[in-house]
Amino acid sequence: MKRLTMIGYAFAGALASSFTLPAAADETNPYIVHRQGIYKTVSGHMTSLKAILFLKHEARDQAAYHAEAIVEAFKHMGNAYPAGSDKGETKARAEIWTQPDKFREAGKNAFAAATALAEATQLGEQKEVITAYKKLGDSCKACHDDFRKK
Amino acid sequence: MKRLTMIGYAFAGALASSFTLPAAADETNPYIVHRQGIYKTVSGHMTSLKAILFLKHEARDQAAYHAEAIVEAFKHMGNAYPAGSDKGETKARAEIWTQPDKFREAGKNAFAAATALAEATQLGEQKEVITAYKKLGDSCKACHDDFRKK
Repeated sequence: MKRLTMIGYAFAGALASSFTLPAAADETNPYIVHRQGIYKTVSGHMTSLKAILFLKHEARDQAAYHAEAIVEAFKHMGNAYPAGSDKGETKARAEIWTQPDKFREAGKNAFAAATALAEATQLGEQKEVITAYKKLGDSCKACHDDFRKK
Repeated sequence: MKRLTMIGYAFAGALASSFTLPAAADETNPYIVHRQGIYKTVSGHMTSLKAILFLKHEARDQAAYHAEAIVEAFKHMGNAYPAGSDKGETKARAEIWTQPDKFREAGKNAFAAATALAEATQLGEQKEVITAYKKLGDSCKACHDDFRKK
């Protein structure tokens, strides 16, 4: 019943305007929506990089653009998990707030891996870039395993 | 049966490595994967901008970053819809290839709207930025309505 009601609201919202807001349309907590945008941006660049590094997309010279854009996105994460932003349309697990040191460490690992990837793209060695990309992917996965709901 | 088999492959893939590639894990067409990454990046910035412009997220001074990053992402779209990239894990409709002029026009509209949004963020008038943001959202929706599968 609750689920149906939520869909009802979403549909009413869609009818109210020709303009459709992106993603998490029902969520109004600014921190939840903002951080989801940052993660989606990072994921988008990882996806394009996947095409370049593993599927032979021709835009090889744009690997640096994508890697640097990931670093920039992380730099704009800001105050992402303030108190109260555990409730809502979020996959954030309670451990983010109950194990803050561990969570901070996971974030630092991901940022360091992103920076290393950007550096690798500057050197231009495909093999190094792929290794750095996989390390960043692993750091994403490690954090998701511990701090994101399935 | 086909769907179950696909899930089976995805699961086998996930088991084969600790590293998980992002999104569209089964798709191997580089153009499909690359363009989906670009759109996801754009969507991520739109989501963060939504938090800033409509939900009172504090990072108001970062609207320009997000808007410019959308323009940059579009600039890196490249050769996004070559022949053959209509088949696979894609929501691209046949009209992209049967109505190329109309599709190109829709793309130009979106790029122009993104550029206008970036310019609006430079002026710093919140009202103008919101108007430009909605216009970009409308141009996204217009193209989705005509050229993306539901």
